[in-house]
Amino acid sequence: MVQLGKVKIGGGSLAMIAGPCAIESLAVLDEIAGAVKKAGANILRGGAFKPRTSPYSFQGLGEDGLKYLRDIGVKHDMPVVTEVMDPRQIPLVERYADMFQIGARNMQNFDLLKEIGQTKKVVLLKRGMSATVKDLLMSAEYVLSEGNPNVVLCERGVRSFEDSTRNMLDMSAVPNVKGQSHLPIIVDPSHATGRPDLIPALAMASVAAGSDGVHIEVHSCPEKALSDGPQALLPPKYAEVMAQIRKLAEILGRTF
Amino acid sequence: MVQLGKVKIGGGSLAMIAGPCAIESLAVLDEIAGAVKKAGANILRGGAFKPRTSPYSFQGLGEDGLKYLRDIGVKHDMPVVTEVMDPRQIPLVERYADMFQIGARNMQNFDLLKEIGQTKKVVLLKRGMSATVKDLLMSAEYVLSEGNPNVVLCERGVRSFEDSTRNMLDMSAVPNVKGQSHLPIIVDPSHATGRPDLIPALAMASVAAGSDGVHIEVHSCPEKALSDGPQALLPPKYAEVMAQIRKLAEILGRTF
Amino acid sequence: MVQLGKVKIGGGSLAMIAGPCAIESLAVLDEIAGAVKKAGANILRGGAFKPRTSPYSFQGLGEDGLKYLRDIGVKHDMPVVTEVMDPRQIPLVERYADMFQIGARNMQNFDLLKEIGQTKKVVLLKRGMSATVKDLLMSAEYVLSEGNPNVVLCERGVRSFEDSTRNMLDMSAVPNVKGQSHLPIIVDPSHATGRPDLIPALAMASVAAGSDGVHIEVHSCPEKALSDGPQALLPPKYAEVMAQIRKLAEILGRTF
Amino acid sequence: MVQLGKVKIGGGSLAMIAGPCAIESLAVLDEIAGAVKKAGANILRGGAFKPRTSPYSFQGLGEDGLKYLRDIGVKHDMPVVTEVMDPRQIPLVERYADMFQIGARNMQNFDLLKEIGQTKKVVLLKRGMSATVKDLLMSAEYVLSEGNPNVVLCERGVRSFEDSTRNMLDMSAVPNVKGQSHLPIIVDPSHATGRPDLIPALAMASVAAGSDGVHIEVHSCPEKALSDGPQALLPPKYAEVMAQIRKLAEILGRTF
Repeated sequence: MVQLGKVKIGGGSLAMIAGPCAIESLAVLDEIAGAVKKAGANILRGGAFKPRTSPYSFQGLGEDGLKYLRDIGVKHDMPVVTEVMDPRQIPLVERYADMFQIGARNMQNFDLLKEIGQTKKVVLLKRGMSATVKDLLMSAEYVLSEGNPNVVLCERGVRSFEDSTRNMLDMSAVPNVKGQSHLPIIVDPSHATGRPDLIPALAMASVAAGSDGVHIEVHSCPEKALSDGPQALLPPKYAEVMAQIRKLAEILGRTF
Repeated sequence: MVQLGKVKIGGGSLAMIAGPCAIESLAVLDEIAGAVKKAGANILRGGAFKPRTSPYSFQGLGEDGLKYLRDIGVKHDMPVVTEVMDPRQIPLVERYADMFQIGARNMQNFDLLKEIGQTKKVVLLKRGMSATVKDLLMSAEYVLSEGNPNVVLCERGVRSFEDSTRNMLDMSAVPNVKGQSHLPIIVDPSHATGRPDLIPALAMASVAAGSDGVHIEVHSCPEKALSDGPQALLPPKYAEVMAQIRKLAEILGRTF
Repeated sequence: MVQLGKVKIGGGSLAMIAGPCAIESLAVLDEIAGAVKKAGANILRGGAFKPRTSPYSFQGLGEDGLKYLRDIGVKHDMPVVTEVMDPRQIPLVERYADMFQIGARNMQNFDLLKEIGQTKKVVLLKRGMSATVKDLLMSAEYVLSEGNPNVVLCERGVRSFEDSTRNMLDMSAVPNVKGQSHLPIIVDPSHATGRPDLIPALAMASVAAGSDGVHIEVHSCPEKALSDGPQALLPPKYAEVMAQIRKLAEILGRTF
Repeated sequence: MVQLGKVKIGGGSLAMIAGPCAIESLAVLDEIAGAVKKAGANILRGGAFKPRTSPYSFQGLGEDGLKYLRDIGVKHDMPVVTEVMDPRQIPLVERYADMFQIGARNMQNFDLLKEIGQTKKVVLLKRGMSATVKDLLMSAEYVLSEGNPNVVLCERGVRSFEDSTRNMLDMSAVPNVKGQSHLPIIVDPSHATGRPDLIPALAMASVAAGSDGVHIEVHSCPEKALSDGPQALLPPKYAEVMAQIRKLAEILGRTF
């Protein structure tokens, strides 16, 4: 079980992480945060530094984005998580965020892992696109062996030949990790599929499979989003999914 | 919705298929069938013709196996499903089975598909190990276009680099199919993972994802099984899983 | 080493198989056969029964196609190879063809393998799209164990996440097979990539890797082909590739 | 074409990179360097900082290793290449190495790419284990767009279901890159397969496919190597392969 402010992750408590892919403006973030909080989310996400396949795509707002994220988190009383891509960003991101995210592309950036391990801050470690479950657990060891026990794993899909989804969500990773590690593991159906129509079913499935939380991208205006808009859920759809998950969590003896 | 004797598949009704990988003897099959029926299974499975990677492995009991399967099905009042591997076996298998299974290796055996399409018998069409969801739906078209509308699809994992499970269960196939076809789709976590410790969580997840049933291998003595023993659940474990699924199905408005 | 009429496959002799994907008419086949023969091809290919993902695509000319293939093979003095998809087609195909092809989708159609094993005819066994090298060798065992030693393996690409080629050509399969089997293995860059621009380089690479031949689709009018036209080489391009391969084969001590 | 000291890469000139996985001692490195130079290698490789899946594996000699590498490179008159894993290592590595290597795990470490782009030093950019060819080219853009044109790409295998080789060498990447970029591309059959028995055939195939060089791990005592020993070639085997490649290069109009 990992403690993030008042939020518990694991041991029957679910991390319901939601927010936009990238932080774009204070107003948009505020609107989204208010909506997801009301729907039951307990952690706010948003990217200030965006790892993009192309150098010509939008790269994020940087420190301005971090400030917006912290302010909106405080306003809505939610801890915030954001990605850190480079060890030198750690002090900066540490000032604003409650939880570091290590993205799929950096799952084997070993210097980054070790230096995150020297902080005590909670870290969300996403599975690499071609990482086995064992690779993921070994990457967690890089953080743990430096003295930081606060690691939350995240299954977010791996590369496959199936071309109708962005990646292939490996649901078996959830019980697979549970059988060999004490670390919490959550699921991110947004990045796994890239398709909002598939997210509700997979969010439900994740909780039923025993995951310790669900990470969903939500945007109030997906078609205007600067990054990954088309895969985001609209706030009303997110609220529907959360209502369903609440009923499911209840019969499984889980809360959020 | 597909009707198989008294069992409905789809439209809120779940196909709970269980049984041994291969039919081995009347006594063993009887014992397994009694146990899975009591736990809530509504369709009995068992292989009489086994497609094996190696020609030197056990190949199944053939017609004797089919007879055992029919007799035990009648005794426990369960329709039975078994694999047909060659178009010339269709008349024989048709005499004994209520439902044909087309295995993953034959998903693109087009002559077999067409001739199954000329019967009216219900068919369980398993996804090939490297088939996309679109490929699976096109294979179903081979059956449908010959006049047989009674197709039930089955997600059973695809090949991937992850080496701690036999295949990778693609849970997104369930909502993916639901969004573009009226055909029922069930999930087979036994073949997808090859690991009994992962089956309970994935069976629950399948139902939560909206699948129309779950296919699980059960054996009363896995270590003596002639085929795929190690991946089978023991009857008491199967009963536990079914009890959990029952509670889940209830809140989702589904029955079996 | 496998003997196909006057053509040797293996032991330093290369099978240079060429022809259209599907047999479409006597005139077109004649034109293509003349061109590839002149360029150095020693075996003519052409499909009479076409396994197509969709039942609504062109399915081949059947026995008429087989007759055209035999007649054109005789005219140009080349043995001919064509796909057999169903065990019941074996006697028919056997009458017209010198070599059976078992396609990737049927690599684990075990009844087909066994019955081909009961003939003595040479068989070209293509690797399945998700088959390991070991799976391929086990499928060959189904033919060999029935008494037919005349098996030629074919690497033709496997499914992968790379989306700029149809499949991923696994060149390592060539030395991998050579290290553990006496069977000849050839490479099919046409189906592996689906891209004519990549075929010349990969054909050369195949021979350099030690393969016992190359299988290339050639069509005199790719844009009018009824199946897989866009991946075929034009005859003049094929002649260029063959001229290059000839120089390469010479320094490697191989002939065709 | 990229110029690395007196060595040209591309435009008909092949980069023949060889050396141990990790730098272990001055004496061992000297012995290996002498052997590969004599066999025809023109660039010496060796790792001082080793990215290892597990934090408990040997992590490299660090700056001591860099010094050994430079000294041995000078002694044998070969430019040297070594991996840089963190942007903060750039000034240190730049002092000792002639060519930076960016490893597969860092192919999308965008900060590292950008800062390498701000140097003018030649960089060997290895393809990520789940990167498409397009992803690889976009990562090269991160270097190029910062003003460093000296990028050499390297195909080193991708993750796949085939379990008899460490990765799957995607030979089609060579002509695929050639068709859409002016950047040189070399092939690394050592990491692609992890099997010395497959390396000679694949090295030959790489050159025949049009690659601009071959990267091979060589160790004089593989069973005592501290990292990846079992995949290294012994110096006499490397010399044999190079002799073969020389004959092949000649008929292709290439030199090294």
